Amino acid sequence: MFHNDAFRVLDGQECRRLLGRVSVGRVVYTRHALPAVLPVNFTLDPDGSVLLCTSRGSDLVRAVDGVVVAFEADEFDAATRSGWSVVVTGRATTVTDPAEQARLSQAGPASWMPLRDPVFVRIASEMVTGRELAGAHALR
Amino acid sequence: MFHNDAFRVLDGQECRRLLGRVSVGRVVYTRHALPAVLPVNFTLDPDGSVLLCTSRGSDLVRAVDGVVVAFEADEFDAATRSGWSVVVTGRATTVTDPAEQARLSQAGPASWMPLRDPVFVRIASEMVTGRELAGAHALR
Repeated sequence: MFHNDAFRVLDGQECRRLLGRVSVGRVVYTRHALPAVLPVNFTLDPDGSVLLCTSRGSDLVRAVDGVVVAFEADEFDAATRSGWSVVVTGRATTVTDPAEQARLSQAGPASWMPLRDPVFVRIASEMVTGRELAGAHALR
Repeated sequence: MFHNDAFRVLDGQECRRLLGRVSVGRVVYTRHALPAVLPVNFTLDPDGSVLLCTSRGSDLVRAVDGVVVAFEADEFDAATRSGWSVVVTGRATTVTDPAEQARLSQAGPASWMPLRDPVFVRIASEMVTGRELAGAHALR
């Protein structure tokens, strides 16, 4: 799907609204020169960046800290063949500022898993794209 | 989430069974030297490879034909903080053999969108990994 003529492009405001509706997205990056993808629960910071919480010593942190990654979230309904997808592309960085860490400990995401030495990772919202599939094909 | 100690690794049979339960996954690849991700509906071939249908002239085909990509599918439940994710990694190729095209026109995936000049893309199942998060953290 997502042929160029058959979906609606979403604007930035729509993308942010949709991202706020879901709690899990997928970090897309490169690991050992291969494409890699890992689902994570996340929250959106008021500046639009994506926040997640993982272990400081995790493979994910080693692979993405300081690197441009993509972050994707979506919702699709197979019955109506409709849905949306939003991709945020930007540099991922671990949060090291103590004041920022303290703020995110209150307002940031809580990992769904128990973590040793948790760290927040921020994915800057440098480029945001979104597409909506309205299911027209299914209704023909 | 998906800290090393807190999820269960799925075996190949479980991965295939779970992939068979969903109709949408995400192709993870590189486009213009940046990580890229595109949701697609798919089916599994009996040999375990992932099949999708898109336009022959699409950006996706240009980017992935002959290239190793990842393909991810998952289901998560925010209420129980549980779910699973499976990743198939392998070379993507467009199907060019006429007999194979004819077979997939019958048994392969039908795009959710109207397509000009449709083509089937096969992602070989060279490596399959899966993880299950049972929500133990949420139940503590």
